[in-house]
Amino acid sequence: MHYKVILRILGLLLMIFSITMLPPLAISYGYHDGTHMAFISGFTITLLTGFIIWSPVYRVREDLRTRDGFLITVLFWVVLGLFGAIPFMLSKDPGLSFVDAVFESLSGLTTTGATVMTGIDVLPESILFYRQQLQWLGGMGIIVLAVAILPMLGIGGMQLYRAETPGPVKDSKLTPRITETAKALWYIYLSLTIACALGYWIAGMTPFDAIGHSFSTVAIGGFSTHDASIGYFDSPLIEGVCTFFMVISAINFGLHFFAWRQRTFSHYFQDPEFKFYLIILFSIISLSAVVLTLTETYAPVESIRKAIFEVVSIATTTGFATADFAQWPVMLPFLLFVAAFAGGCAGSTGGGMKVIRVLLILKQGHREIKRLIHPNAVIPVKLGREPISDRILEAVWGFFSVYLIVFILMLIILLGTGLDQVTAWSAVGATLNNLGPGLGEVETHYGDLNSTAKWVLTFAMLLGRLEVFTLLVLFTPSFWKR
Amino acid sequence: MHYKVILRILGLLLMIFSITMLPPLAISYGYHDGTHMAFISGFTITLLTGFIIWSPVYRVREDLRTRDGFLITVLFWVVLGLFGAIPFMLSKDPGLSFVDAVFESLSGLTTTGATVMTGIDVLPESILFYRQQLQWLGGMGIIVLAVAILPMLGIGGMQLYRAETPGPVKDSKLTPRITETAKALWYIYLSLTIACALGYWIAGMTPFDAIGHSFSTVAIGGFSTHDASIGYFDSPLIEGVCTFFMVISAINFGLHFFAWRQRTFSHYFQDPEFKFYLIILFSIISLSAVVLTLTETYAPVESIRKAIFEVVSIATTTGFATADFAQWPVMLPFLLFVAAFAGGCAGSTGGGMKVIRVLLILKQGHREIKRLIHPNAVIPVKLGREPISDRILEAVWGFFSVYLIVFILMLIILLGTGLDQVTAWSAVGATLNNLGPGLGEVETHYGDLNSTAKWVLTFAMLLGRLEVFTLLVLFTPSFWKR
Ligand SMILES: [K+]
Ligand SMILES: [K+]
Repeated sequence: MHYKVILRILGLLLMIFSITMLPPLAISYGYHDGTHMAFISGFTITLLTGFIIWSPVYRVREDLRTRDGFLITVLFWVVLGLFGAIPFMLSKDPGLSFVDAVFESLSGLTTTGATVMTGIDVLPESILFYRQQLQWLGGMGIIVLAVAILPMLGIGGMQLYRAETPGPVKDSKLTPRITETAKALWYIYLSLTIACALGYWIAGMTPFDAIGHSFSTVAIGGFSTHDASIGYFDSPLIEGVCTFFMVISAINFGLHFFAWRQRTFSHYFQDPEFKFYLIILFSIISLSAVVLTLTETYAPVESIRKAIFEVVSIATTTGFATADFAQWPVMLPFLLFVAAFAGGCAGSTGGGMKVIRVLLILKQGHREIKRLIHPNAVIPVKLGREPISDRILEAVWGFFSVYLIVFILMLIILLGTGLDQVTAWSAVGATLNNLGPGLGEVETHYGDLNSTAKWVLTFAMLLGRLEVFTLLVLFTPSFWKR
Repeated sequence: MHYKVILRILGLLLMIFSITMLPPLAISYGYHDGTHMAFISGFTITLLTGFIIWSPVYRVREDLRTRDGFLITVLFWVVLGLFGAIPFMLSKDPGLSFVDAVFESLSGLTTTGATVMTGIDVLPESILFYRQQLQWLGGMGIIVLAVAILPMLGIGGMQLYRAETPGPVKDSKLTPRITETAKALWYIYLSLTIACALGYWIAGMTPFDAIGHSFSTVAIGGFSTHDASIGYFDSPLIEGVCTFFMVISAINFGLHFFAWRQRTFSHYFQDPEFKFYLIILFSIISLSAVVLTLTETYAPVESIRKAIFEVVSIATTTGFATADFAQWPVMLPFLLFVAAFAGGCAGSTGGGMKVIRVLLILKQGHREIKRLIHPNAVIPVKLGREPISDRILEAVWGFFSVYLIVFILMLIILLGTGLDQVTAWSAVGATLNNLGPGLGEVETHYGDLNSTAKWVLTFAMLLGRLEVFTLLVLFTPSFWKR
């Protein structure tokens, strides 16, 4: 391990992160919300710590290897999660405990959007802005993680998206070097954010709300400046803008990158993952709208409106709400929750197992049935016209099983702390899939859970965001061997 | 498809099955329980139908192919399930409706042990005996299915156990022809049943109860002649006998076959699946005993006694009860239920996904983590010293995913019929895993569910018992193409 270089990067990261405490500080002064000391302290502590870590090793230059990549990726989220918690603890309002502050901070950075707080509407403006900004920054990190780092590390079959590997997006040949790729992706991310903020503003939000919600929309985050979430505005126009940008942000950014460079849109419909993603959304929206109408939960038009928004919000793992879907009739809460396990597309800010993996799993399940009838036939699993290598399929399976095992283990621990079954399974699902809201006691917020449960769920958010393996690999002895 | 031969086999099967109505008939006369007409009718209808199917084609001799094997296997359970339901419908007590009778009959034959009835203790003796006997006959069918047919059809990686394939039990070289293998296996099955019945009798059961419970013990069935199940006897000795035979019956019968022919026991401990099976049982028993003691649910000794019995009963998917484990504290009900998803060993009468598949899945999950650290290393998945082929691993994965997908789909349908989440998921789990008792509203019986739910769960029992694929393959168009 190249610890010195890792420390240098980490120190640099902290110093950069400290700068992100300044916009909320400015807002605190602007709104006179009395929270400026929390951000001044946060800025100072983070900057100094970063400098102390960085300065002894700032001259070290060594080539990093894959193993260092895992450690840096994990430390990135853990360290920012911890330092990001400072303003939540030091501010008078909300003045969170350590566990709550870390939960809230990591929930922001991992774009999970689960909150321990109530009375969001009356929080200081600077804290509100800071929460939204955490999601936006997290989303930035995720885009680079998902498009550039995970394929390189080969996590859960994501080598599928390596620029040099044949695959659905091979034609897009992402700019080879990570820094350049990152720059291009951030440009797209920023453009989407600006477009989204303008959309919200034109649709009737205040500039403050428009910017705040654009942050958490493109990040598939789900934090809001209101307890009632998007439902607060009760505006079909705002819901339309929100739905549009949730759908866009949960698409592989590699596709957006290609669209931006080649000025074309036709490639979206050649991408098997994108097509399957639309099929999932469309079928669940239709079913939900029918069930909501038949059970007379809402009038027909209202059923369609609520179904579109809630299904897109939950299936993309955003977690905004215009309705209390957990109270919807019969199978709908469960169905929407299961959709969140599929989640967004690979290479997006969405959570869950990713649509591409679910598609590959279904395709292989289908292959096994065909093989029973034709035991000696060679039947490749294909994406579009490309056959998928066994190595990638195995990695997808490995991901699927480890995801499920982690889910069950954490569920058992949560049940052990005394939660009921529906609360426990939906809390683990909502955090592991980086979705946010759960069912049962965690329908609106996580504040009433015990500390053990909160720590487990914080770990779940991290596991989900790091696609499980990036974090689990650190717990194997062979990772630490020379 | 060789329909004529299939009809000949089916007719023959029905005629043989009709004979199994005679022992309960004799019991009905012996106990004067007034149910003899139900069995006389059942016997006559089944025999005649069998004869009518068999007689036009009884001379046809054609070689069967794999495809015919699927159809015969499915028809075996479906047809016996339907005709086995006759006595439940025609008897005055219980006089079940069509859906209830088929549910009860298939629950017996698939050795699920879920019941729609209450007041078991006061049912006519002949009906009680008939239920127990259904499980025993089902268990017989399962042993042949699991040891001889599934490996031949190559279901979900079970080609691992083909006599000609290298694998953990290759040394045992099961007698090649199915009929001879079947004979040997049934001999073992019968010996175990006799030993178990004697054990129960010596431990204090009446001969009627001893024989009845021996039937449902070796079949991993779980039907009892008492509402309170094994708890009725409140005898540590009877629980000991029961636990011993549950553990034995959930072991691969291929191992028993080898033990019987070679007069050796050492090979058990060379079998990786057997070792993992003991590890699962031992760890869950220990954890349960500790939790039960710490939560003061029972006194320490009582905690150990209840933990041993309930964990073995649920994890092997038998479903006997001496305690109301669904009311146990915190995570125990869920934990035991999850153990039932692993279930018994391959080639046993146990249900669930089978221990060997769970072991292979864990091993491949572990391999994926190792591969992240050593991306270019060739890391085989091994059982004992034998590397497992990719083809088998893929089949196991396919099985795992299809099992999960089927589970979720049926869960959504059940929720759609209005069940609550805990009832719905445990009902699907308890039937798909051929376990029997569930949680929530199906803790003791399934009688209060709506008809749609009952049909879905009947289908689940069949799916589980036929290892999903055997049944699903019939729903693919290509199966029916010439
Ligand atoms: K989210
Ligand atoms: K059972």
